[in-house]
Amino acid sequence: MLYTPEHAPRPLTEENEAQVHEYAMRICEEIGLDVLHQDARKLLEEAGQKVDGDRVYFDRGFVMEQLANAPHTFTLHARNPQNTVEVGGGTTLWMGVGGPPFLSDLDEGRRAGTLEGHDTIIKLTQAASPLNCAQAGACEPTKMDVNTRHLDMEYSTLRWSDLPYTTYGTSGPKARDGIEMARIVHGGDLGDRTALMGVVNSVSPLIWDFRMVDAMIAWAESNQATVVTPFLLGGATAAVSVAGGLAQQVAEALSGVAIAQTIRPGAPCLYGSFFQATDMRSGAPALGTPESIFGVFAGAQLARRYGLPFRGGGGLCSSNAVDAQAAAESSFMLWATMLAGTDVVLHAAGWLEGGLTASLEKFALDVELLEQLQIQQEGIGFSEEEFAFDALKELGPGGLWLAAQHTMDHFREWQYISPLFITQDFTTWSAAGGEETAARANRRWKQLLDTYEDPGIDADIDAELIAYMDRRKSEPPPIEDD
Amino acid sequence: MLYTPEHAPRPLTEENEAQVHEYAMRICEEIGLDVLHQDARKLLEEAGQKVDGDRVYFDRGFVMEQLANAPHTFTLHARNPQNTVEVGGGTTLWMGVGGPPFLSDLDEGRRAGTLEGHDTIIKLTQAASPLNCAQAGACEPTKMDVNTRHLDMEYSTLRWSDLPYTTYGTSGPKARDGIEMARIVHGGDLGDRTALMGVVNSVSPLIWDFRMVDAMIAWAESNQATVVTPFLLGGATAAVSVAGGLAQQVAEALSGVAIAQTIRPGAPCLYGSFFQATDMRSGAPALGTPESIFGVFAGAQLARRYGLPFRGGGGLCSSNAVDAQAAAESSFMLWATMLAGTDVVLHAAGWLEGGLTASLEKFALDVELLEQLQIQQEGIGFSEEEFAFDALKELGPGGLWLAAQHTMDHFREWQYISPLFITQDFTTWSAAGGEETAARANRRWKQLLDTYEDPGIDADIDAELIAYMDRRKSEPPPIEDD
Repeated sequence: MLYTPEHAPRPLTEENEAQVHEYAMRICEEIGLDVLHQDARKLLEEAGQKVDGDRVYFDRGFVMEQLANAPHTFTLHARNPQNTVEVGGGTTLWMGVGGPPFLSDLDEGRRAGTLEGHDTIIKLTQAASPLNCAQAGACEPTKMDVNTRHLDMEYSTLRWSDLPYTTYGTSGPKARDGIEMARIVHGGDLGDRTALMGVVNSVSPLIWDFRMVDAMIAWAESNQATVVTPFLLGGATAAVSVAGGLAQQVAEALSGVAIAQTIRPGAPCLYGSFFQATDMRSGAPALGTPESIFGVFAGAQLARRYGLPFRGGGGLCSSNAVDAQAAAESSFMLWATMLAGTDVVLHAAGWLEGGLTASLEKFALDVELLEQLQIQQEGIGFSEEEFAFDALKELGPGGLWLAAQHTMDHFREWQYISPLFITQDFTTWSAAGGEETAARANRRWKQLLDTYEDPGIDADIDAELIAYMDRRKSEPPPIEDD
Repeated sequence: MLYTPEHAPRPLTEENEAQVHEYAMRICEEIGLDVLHQDARKLLEEAGQKVDGDRVYFDRGFVMEQLANAPHTFTLHARNPQNTVEVGGGTTLWMGVGGPPFLSDLDEGRRAGTLEGHDTIIKLTQAASPLNCAQAGACEPTKMDVNTRHLDMEYSTLRWSDLPYTTYGTSGPKARDGIEMARIVHGGDLGDRTALMGVVNSVSPLIWDFRMVDAMIAWAESNQATVVTPFLLGGATAAVSVAGGLAQQVAEALSGVAIAQTIRPGAPCLYGSFFQATDMRSGAPALGTPESIFGVFAGAQLARRYGLPFRGGGGLCSSNAVDAQAAAESSFMLWATMLAGTDVVLHAAGWLEGGLTASLEKFALDVELLEQLQIQQEGIGFSEEEFAFDALKELGPGGLWLAAQHTMDHFREWQYISPLFITQDFTTWSAAGGEETAARANRRWKQLLDTYEDPGIDADIDAELIAYMDRRKSEPPPIEDD
């Protein structure tokens, strides 16, 4: 392995780490966080925390005690046992994009997300070798019923992929539906097995709202994994300074972990980082800038300090097109993600337009970037045949390696040939129309989709999933807020 | 500094380094290199090396003895003493592109290089804050006399920039012209001062041709710096395997250094790496692939082993357009260049189309990438004001950072706002024409050029430079080959 967490860039000295920790603990103790969930506040009060209205003042001793109960690694069971993985155990989980209300490709342009588009992205995730984890919510089918479409997205994820996955779960009831569907897929009984990860975002600064806490309770109660991710935009939801953002991140992340551990000690939790600057010209997040890169490296460093698996990074970009800006932002982000030794990566492929659009061409571009990074990660081979001394001796000075048997024997295996990036000479390329990367990426995602193999599903389980969805769709919509 | 040479990715274990060294020494001793320069061969023979026809068998003891004479760092004097720099002393020298026969921008398209284009790139180099070194030959004015245009490119570099620089010098006589012009600029006498760097490429595999050796002799004699750079394309001029390429690189680089040190012990030499794969579909170099990245990291590691300043990396790409491929390839290359702790970087900005074209839009893109990397390199600030505790306390949970005085006071200073990358919402952007990065880069290089300030030049020195060029242009063309 060329890039190891031990050699990751470390933007914080030991003293800086201690400072961030101290400020984070002072935020928890002196400022406190609003926890907009009565049952959770009650539990925290019973556990000795000072509660005043919605405000909870988390004692640092309590926070660190709860943190100590969270596991350093955990097993994430996939429906195909071959894809079961130890999260935090050295394997990075790379996922496709999640959350965009729009879907886009060069054939049909930008449009509202559809369930068909969701299926496509799940299938591309299953087919793309650099990706090893699925994410429900790949694009939001916004024309479907908001109260039940999470069921369809969850089904899409479970049916068309057999990878470990992140559930949709944007509220307690939706999280519980996801858990029920995971139970069905795992044969009706999960026991204590962790079969999904769910993401909660604090409403920054310093609020844990009802839906998020309720989802966290659902996951913790059933020993599912919670990715506790403060959603920090410097200058909008956090201080404009990276150091201030980090202190706030630790306060929000560790208070979230403390809530989950109060529900069930030992429930898997991840330290999540979504940390970006705000472009003051537009008020929009600026993704892939130096602040984003600091967020990845610093987040990874802090997660390790606190002994939690790290979720961060991804193929994030602000660009509206699959152009040079998109590629630069995502190259920086994805490489930082890998250099940091990140454990879990949401949005590694397909993210465009600040996350508003799932782009199929961007998906193909990101898969290409990941492919290259994973080959880099493997490092250089140093076998005797690779040193090629005898072949060079035979050729001698001025010899033609291009015609050498050694080259013929090994170039397919030893040299990377990109299916997306080209080296065609300008004149030929130009005469053929001067096609740019995005146009080739359009063909590339279709090729990738052609290689998709349906993992299949047991007919009874499939029927049970569909019956569950039908039943839930016939029931009155659940109350998601307090 | 976030990225330090000590923490650079190291693709070779100590054992791998020893293996590469051993194979390189066996190449020097058992296969030998052709040195197509009679005087050099004579010197090498007098120094005890076995010579057979053109072939020189370099003894490893001799190679390592010569290497030991080369300095670990050296002072590179700029005509503006404020720009004088210690090469190998921790400051990376970033240069614009050199060598392309074509010039391109979106206004006039791709065309033959011109002297005016050369002037523009030198001015952009002088103006762009991430660049701190110039390179003669920014684009080749191919319609001018091949025997004298090097004088014009050298003048362009000396006149419009006051940075340290790399000379043109593709042959002995051209190298000597460059040295003469440096003498004039430095007041007529250089003494032992190093005022320029020159690049020599071996004709791989294992040939040092007359022009390159003759240029190297010129530079070494006058204590100017030689960047000894094997030009390795895996599968074409080197083995298709990275390990084989590295062994060949060490043999070629160290034999070159040995030649220079035989001319003048202590003459500054750099360990140069130009190390890429060959795309077997086109026969062209494939730039920015994992092989290129290995080349940067391994080259830097080997250069440090041998105690020489390292030249490598750059904003290289194969793409024919300023598109996603170009940005991905160059983002990877430039970040690797920085991570490796590279000392000298040719072609950091403006390289397009495998180096055949100097693109002004690509120049603007690369400058943007470098700007971001250099901000990353500075790391995170951890002052008390940056921790922003009091500001957060005042805001409390749910407070608006966007409206906070702390944000207003600091966002200009503490947050990076790209002049090239945008975060505009899709609808506005699309309604305004959906402009992609390359179109914005066209405006960006013009803005950059507008900020150019002529460093000026002493009128007598300028007249002397022009008189030198006039004299040389009136003389018969020198014989460049043996």
